[in-house]
Amino acid sequence: MNAIGTLGSHCALQVLKGAKDEGFKTILVCERRREGLYRRFRFIDRLIPVEDYRFEHAFSEGIQNELHDNNCILVPHGTYISSMKIEEIESIRVPFFGNRWILRWEADRVMKERLMLEARLNVPRSVSIDELGNSSSSSSGSGSSSSSSSKDAGRLVIAKLHGAAGGKGYFLAWDRESFMAQYNKLLSKGMVKSLNDLYIQEYVLGVPVYLQYFYSPLSREVELLGIDRRYESNVDAIGRVPALQQEHSGIHEVSYNVVGNSPLVLRESLLDEVYRMGERFVAAAERLVKPGMIGPFCIEGVYDQDGRFISFEFSARIVAGTNLYVNGSPYSYLLYDEPMSMGRRIAREVRTAIESRELDKVVT
Amino acid sequence: MNAIGTLGSHCALQVLKGAKDEGFKTILVCERRREGLYRRFRFIDRLIPVEDYRFEHAFSEGIQNELHDNNCILVPHGTYISSMKIEEIESIRVPFFGNRWILRWEADRVMKERLMLEARLNVPRSVSIDELGNSSSSSSGSGSSSSSSSKDAGRLVIAKLHGAAGGKGYFLAWDRESFMAQYNKLLSKGMVKSLNDLYIQEYVLGVPVYLQYFYSPLSREVELLGIDRRYESNVDAIGRVPALQQEHSGIHEVSYNVVGNSPLVLRESLLDEVYRMGERFVAAAERLVKPGMIGPFCIEGVYDQDGRFISFEFSARIVAGTNLYVNGSPYSYLLYDEPMSMGRRIAREVRTAIESRELDKVVT
Amino acid sequence: MNAIGTLGSHCALQVLKGAKDEGFKTILVCERRREGLYRRFRFIDRLIPVEDYRFEHAFSEGIQNELHDNNCILVPHGTYISSMKIEEIESIRVPFFGNRWILRWEADRVMKERLMLEARLNVPRSVSIDELGNSSSSSSGSGSSSSSSSKDAGRLVIAKLHGAAGGKGYFLAWDRESFMAQYNKLLSKGMVKSLNDLYIQEYVLGVPVYLQYFYSPLSREVELLGIDRRYESNVDAIGRVPALQQEHSGIHEVSYNVVGNSPLVLRESLLDEVYRMGERFVAAAERLVKPGMIGPFCIEGVYDQDGRFISFEFSARIVAGTNLYVNGSPYSYLLYDEPMSMGRRIAREVRTAIESRELDKVVT
Repeated sequence: MNAIGTLGSHCALQVLKGAKDEGFKTILVCERRREGLYRRFRFIDRLIPVEDYRFEHAFSEGIQNELHDNNCILVPHGTYISSMKIEEIESIRVPFFGNRWILRWEADRVMKERLMLEARLNVPRSVSIDELGNSSSSSSGSGSSSSSSSKDAGRLVIAKLHGAAGGKGYFLAWDRESFMAQYNKLLSKGMVKSLNDLYIQEYVLGVPVYLQYFYSPLSREVELLGIDRRYESNVDAIGRVPALQQEHSGIHEVSYNVVGNSPLVLRESLLDEVYRMGERFVAAAERLVKPGMIGPFCIEGVYDQDGRFISFEFSARIVAGTNLYVNGSPYSYLLYDEPMSMGRRIAREVRTAIESRELDKVVT
Repeated sequence: MNAIGTLGSHCALQVLKGAKDEGFKTILVCERRREGLYRRFRFIDRLIPVEDYRFEHAFSEGIQNELHDNNCILVPHGTYISSMKIEEIESIRVPFFGNRWILRWEADRVMKERLMLEARLNVPRSVSIDELGNSSSSSSGSGSSSSSSSKDAGRLVIAKLHGAAGGKGYFLAWDRESFMAQYNKLLSKGMVKSLNDLYIQEYVLGVPVYLQYFYSPLSREVELLGIDRRYESNVDAIGRVPALQQEHSGIHEVSYNVVGNSPLVLRESLLDEVYRMGERFVAAAERLVKPGMIGPFCIEGVYDQDGRFISFEFSARIVAGTNLYVNGSPYSYLLYDEPMSMGRRIAREVRTAIESRELDKVVT
Repeated sequence: MNAIGTLGSHCALQVLKGAKDEGFKTILVCERRREGLYRRFRFIDRLIPVEDYRFEHAFSEGIQNELHDNNCILVPHGTYISSMKIEEIESIRVPFFGNRWILRWEADRVMKERLMLEARLNVPRSVSIDELGNSSSSSSGSGSSSSSSSKDAGRLVIAKLHGAAGGKGYFLAWDRESFMAQYNKLLSKGMVKSLNDLYIQEYVLGVPVYLQYFYSPLSREVELLGIDRRYESNVDAIGRVPALQQEHSGIHEVSYNVVGNSPLVLRESLLDEVYRMGERFVAAAERLVKPGMIGPFCIEGVYDQDGRFISFEFSARIVAGTNLYVNGSPYSYLLYDEPMSMGRRIAREVRTAIESRELDKVVT
């Protein structure tokens, strides 16, 4: 019998619940300080306590051996990427569900953009520091009328840190002065060393949407299994403070710390393009990163006021927003007559592959 | 055997999934460019490809004949209204689930308001252009204290285009000058021809709520089957930009393009009035539009800070927000011990009507 | 056979639906004007009409006798606390599910804070009026740059009324002048009599999260059964009005009238501390309020931009946000292989206690 295993964080509960529902043994590599949480759940058969999720602890020789002896298939998620070097992840001698080589394309800013462009996704325009206007030209003052200022719309930029996890250090700016003020703050905190540590994009005004896909190399079909939006602090809190109070109390810096997720469905007329994006992404991955996309991935972006989707990110593995749908989503119920979480879908694919002796198609 | 059919958009997936779950044959009239989407779903038995959803294509003689020969009952939704003239919809020679004559009351601004007033719903106050103040009296400046400006509260108006679908071209204004500036922009874009193309209402500050009802002419009961709120771009995005950045980058125009929906439950003490509104609406429709309301409808509005519901709209057919509840909603589970989407509820009503030989009570 | 009963409001539908699913007779004490709502639901076996929810009507001698004769166990909720005096609730001669003595700790501001501190929850800092700055020092003007104003961040305070239900009368202020302006308004409306009727806290900028727990005295385990956020008017509406329009139309007062709830899941790495908070709360209640926490409770707060949870409130009984999960939540499905609402969980605990002859452990 095979086992399915993962690290104790991110979406481990959903993944192992789904694995158990599909008849697998379940194994969790778990930080000692989190044992209290994970021991509550009976669907976890084996819990391997570790010091932390650094490679040398989480995937020591002994642990790799144990996983191997249990015929364990590992399900990678965001915590792998934030806790270990890509080289370390790639070196693990236990089969991964999915394409382990694509995680590098998610983690590296330049490769990531290349894959997104290959998939013909709309991405935000990059902005150079030289393009940022001077403060004199940008000051509009509180008396600006709507007619005079519309020409200024869209001038906002967002500065991001290379390799930053979850929006940490991101900031908004509207001209060189406001940009430098915040850059200098990051400098003084040691969060950046030079301007090269930042990249700047136009800020696309739109509502965030996270598209949760699954690609089956067995059926060769893309499935949309759910949609969510992130719940981020403090950016989802500032709108609850009126403009007047924001001004008087100096609230005007945003952060994008992911706290959770909330469910969404999309207008049905948008779904066709949603599926096409997913299929273009799969095709692009097949060309650029053999053996291509396998299993769960997510395209992340905003719909602007014209209903156009601009994507700023992808994840080439299961995302935490799928935790909303432990018992199925509105989309999964259109495809399956039973509750089908993303975690369970992974396990189902493994089971099907084992039964049809095609396991090599879904693991690397 | 009967079939249930509809146009491929809006809520077609949910409607046909529900029809299939109730044992019907399912038929989709589907734009060629959307075939790729709808062919993914096995619960669609027959897909009739058409050029687009204009009447002459979607309901050509040949297609009407085919639907008729299949004993098909059509489920109307928002795409019918946005793609065809009301006269065309009314002329279709295939039975509709629901009252086809009420769709005209939804599409026409004046008739719509008449039905809402007949149902004794609270509606926003209409505002004439003459009532809009001059800019000199409205400028409050950034130093306004809370005590001096509270007398100004509620002065905001929203201008809407007659017949506009989904909030396109809607704008906010606070005085004649800000109104005219935006009106002139719509003029120059050719979106309006004169002031008569707009109607102006007080802007009611409150949280949006969409109430999803079903009225059964068989049981003569109203059922609340779900509640949602719309997810609109860019109006649900601007609150994520602090006031300071809004000001400096000229973000101060809103649009109400519906991108999706998210789920809600209401405070239980509000439900009694929610049911009463639904019943008043049904009673009003019975008086004004024979044979009255049949099946799904939606009352749309906001709850203000005093917990008062002000409704600005209704839909006299299934709404897209019901797509959240493909597998049932918190409210449907109080009424049914099985998953009951709005689409399935429609099919259940048709089945019950067929079994009791009362089909004429639920179709027109 | 036992019955489970409650007052018709708040979460009565969920509680009685859950009780019926677990095999109990269900009894609703119901205001006459709400009978129309509750008579719709077949899972309510007995409806006792009353004038209103004042103690002398809802729990008259006759009604207490009837409940008693039916072996009824009462489930307390928020409407008990808002409709009756704590002494009256405590005096009811019908068994309560849960610890009736802890409701006093929820209703009294000072006792409440004592219990929260005993549970080592992070609470917002109290602010005295003397700490509020003068307006001269707080005026930053529209030209403030981000660098100069960050030192001012966090200066916002929220003033709350002692014993106020659901955020009524709460207001934001940033200095003595803005505070006094709004205090004087409450005075003139008769909502406060002196400054002693208000308490002031730092305003913690963060995203609201409500944690729905159940503690079983039988298994001695805490269960996280769901997470939600409140949907409040007008504070969740103002972000849909741009800063410019807010300014020109004088929108800058917030209110926190609870209209409903929407679903959330949390980042999995936050769950360990969520469980620890729940367990600390249970331990604190055991020390301070014999026999300790029994059944449902809720810890309410915000996650700030550093992912720190600051709790401003708790409920020592079932909360209305659980109404989202009539058919189970993402968290309940990790624990139970069947739909498990909080209402059903209560009934399950009663049933288990009856079967193991430990009813005295779960009722008071």
